[in-house]
Amino acid sequence: MIKRSLQLMSNTAYKFVPSPQASHFGPSVWVEFSPLSIKHKSINLGQGFPDFEPPQFVSDALAKTVETGGFNQYARSPGHLRLVNAISKVYSPYFERTIEPTTEVVTTVGASEAIFCAIQTCVGQGDEVILIEPFFDIYSGAVVMAGGVSKHVPLREQPRKNVTDARSSANWELDWDEFEKAFTPKTRVLLLNNPHNPVGKVWSRAELERIAEIVKRHPQVTVISDEVYEWMTYDGIKHERFATIKDMYDRTITVGSAGKTFSITGWKIGWCIGPKNIISAIANVHQYIPFSVHTPSQEAVAIALEETLHRDYLKELAQMYQGKRDRLVTSLRQAGLDPVVPQGTYFVLGDTSRIHLQGDEGQSSSITGMGKHLRDWNVCRWLTTDIGVTAIPISAFYSEEHAHLPANYARFCFCKKDQVLDQADKAFQQIKNTKNFNIITLLYNHYHLCIFLHTLSLF
Amino acid sequence: MIKRSLQLMSNTAYKFVPSPQASHFGPSVWVEFSPLSIKHKSINLGQGFPDFEPPQFVSDALAKTVETGGFNQYARSPGHLRLVNAISKVYSPYFERTIEPTTEVVTTVGASEAIFCAIQTCVGQGDEVILIEPFFDIYSGAVVMAGGVSKHVPLREQPRKNVTDARSSANWELDWDEFEKAFTPKTRVLLLNNPHNPVGKVWSRAELERIAEIVKRHPQVTVISDEVYEWMTYDGIKHERFATIKDMYDRTITVGSAGKTFSITGWKIGWCIGPKNIISAIANVHQYIPFSVHTPSQEAVAIALEETLHRDYLKELAQMYQGKRDRLVTSLRQAGLDPVVPQGTYFVLGDTSRIHLQGDEGQSSSITGMGKHLRDWNVCRWLTTDIGVTAIPISAFYSEEHAHLPANYARFCFCKKDQVLDQADKAFQQIKNTKNFNIITLLYNHYHLCIFLHTLSLF
Repeated sequence: MIKRSLQLMSNTAYKFVPSPQASHFGPSVWVEFSPLSIKHKSINLGQGFPDFEPPQFVSDALAKTVETGGFNQYARSPGHLRLVNAISKVYSPYFERTIEPTTEVVTTVGASEAIFCAIQTCVGQGDEVILIEPFFDIYSGAVVMAGGVSKHVPLREQPRKNVTDARSSANWELDWDEFEKAFTPKTRVLLLNNPHNPVGKVWSRAELERIAEIVKRHPQVTVISDEVYEWMTYDGIKHERFATIKDMYDRTITVGSAGKTFSITGWKIGWCIGPKNIISAIANVHQYIPFSVHTPSQEAVAIALEETLHRDYLKELAQMYQGKRDRLVTSLRQAGLDPVVPQGTYFVLGDTSRIHLQGDEGQSSSITGMGKHLRDWNVCRWLTTDIGVTAIPISAFYSEEHAHLPANYARFCFCKKDQVLDQADKAFQQIKNTKNFNIITLLYNHYHLCIFLHTLSLF
Repeated sequence: MIKRSLQLMSNTAYKFVPSPQASHFGPSVWVEFSPLSIKHKSINLGQGFPDFEPPQFVSDALAKTVETGGFNQYARSPGHLRLVNAISKVYSPYFERTIEPTTEVVTTVGASEAIFCAIQTCVGQGDEVILIEPFFDIYSGAVVMAGGVSKHVPLREQPRKNVTDARSSANWELDWDEFEKAFTPKTRVLLLNNPHNPVGKVWSRAELERIAEIVKRHPQVTVISDEVYEWMTYDGIKHERFATIKDMYDRTITVGSAGKTFSITGWKIGWCIGPKNIISAIANVHQYIPFSVHTPSQEAVAIALEETLHRDYLKELAQMYQGKRDRLVTSLRQAGLDPVVPQGTYFVLGDTSRIHLQGDEGQSSSITGMGKHLRDWNVCRWLTTDIGVTAIPISAFYSEEHAHLPANYARFCFCKKDQVLDQADKAFQQIKNTKNFNIITLLYNHYHLCIFLHTLSLF
């Protein structure tokens, strides 16, 4: 604060000094890895958007809307009527109640703006927000702009019951004591992500009920449940909604996204569903940010959602992604990057502990100089330059305090064409042929195997 | 603050308490007048969006983009490349310099999000922003969410040189002493709107130079120049850009809008142009709000902007709107609602001082109960219910402190089909037949005529 005043006063000539909140923001992880991928012509499994076109009925809905005309001016600020009606129709059964379309829904410029508005609506100067690590990096930006303070609770990977079991996102759990201790009288928001990016965890009903129990002890806490991967759960696992846990609807803002559901991340259509009083406050905030959302795309997404009532699209989407998940999981496993098999989302964490970097490998190729002291950043750079596949270091999704925790993980997306996943597979299998791959590492670095060996040694 | 803590603590059951910034926001003026217009089936000259379709080449650009495919995923966060390139090509000549497309432009979800991000980037807790009244209501919302404080300086209508001259938006001027006094060491932003909504004023180069002189004495001040009506100036008046005033480029963020330029307010495409250091900070903020802007519409707007380099569209747009302005100005004048003839924008202020409301007229019809103590709100309601035309009370664009100043004005839009303006004309001519119209008022209420009479009485 003093530094900023000095900066301002020491000049008689103009000098731009960003606001305290804006000066928090530097370039993000994408600014390093997207250009790096382009430079090295790598297969980009970094950024989480489909590289395929949306389903024909969705493209057709926009094409028809544009052709017909009449949808070119401002939409109703809290949401185009046909879209809020469609959201009500599709979601009411899943919420086990009637979602009132004009008062319990607000449409937004993607889930990003939904989360931004929800946080602005709940969080003021000095208020605290609990984020579960790893977390999608826009959460903390929104907290900063509301003047809030993020409190971080990491998911902790638990040992498998049997060492021969596949790793699963289900084993990434909260330490309940640590979680409960994060709540203070200043906590205003708990931000949940379910299914969870980047871990792929689908929270069980038992877990959500336990969270609800804790939340109930803190009457000032509103829950934002980011459920943009809601339709992508695998192996028959059911996506449970926090808003359906007893007494939770009245304090829960559920965030959804057409971008994820219909493979149209560039249309930027999302929404919040929740109780009237909260939705009305979010709508008031939203009218001062974009005012309204792209009209023709709202009409088209309404048509697309209505279609899901008559066809098996959502089921087929999960089936398609389960196939892609299995393909990528197999690749990573064969390549020695032991994957955490995700129950949901379109991400897989691969364990990179068998890759040994030497000298300045993974540092010298950096474009921005970011993350040179972090193992996972260096490994992801090496994967791009030496293997030809780009992944994202998940320490970018942790607080500085906890950035060391995921040193051995990289996030890979499988929302890509099968042929791209096949190319990635070929590239991955080269890892074993590099000097950097250490089979012996298995014995030293492989945490769970160590435990297993340790267990054996007890006998 | 204390009240909020008590609200939070006094409950053991959950109760939603909005953040301090969110609790500033109630329903806006639109929430009263849009439903009122629908209820009374009035001709709506309230909300400023065209009721006609965009030009064919613009609709075609989107239709073709959607049909071709390949534009359905996230755009580059600071702006789709083809669009920032087109913006650079179109604007560089007007800015008298080369606008570097990838570092001096950021595209946004309409001008609204541009202004929101620009304010977030410059304004922190307790910082001051100077707003010139009347001002577009989203400005103050953005200031509140940045933790800033708005300081208000009204434009003051000056007497005409000759009482027979038409009123003009040019006569709405700053009181330079009052303006300069508004600057303090805490001032971080001056927000200009040029051409000015709702007055229709196009700032002269002399005025902008005088503003620049004052700004120069305050090295901590950045200027946001909202120029969304840039192509709508009439009678050969040139739109001067604040960024082209000597030494001002480096401290000016210029905001533009495809919505206004191409009659596509529902596509929500806007942008900021400015120096690299400020644009880069805005881009960082923007990535945490919507992350990116609608991809197919960015491609289509790029095509549309490129087209303006080869055809006379922008000139024809001004000519079309000048015809509509003249039509509405004549209507209002004939109806006894002496108009302030706008030099730019698509709004006209009409002087309603000859309308006398009796009893609870204009109050009883209120839907939300808002603005019952304000003359202009009641007159606008009466115009809707008794005349069948909806206008907007411009006290909604003033601070509470100055809300009494525009008691005799209503804002009418002329971005409507000619046949709608003709229907409005017929309705307006009924005003003289009502008991509420007072010809005598002219002598008592007509401020400038009073001055004239007063002047006569001096002789």
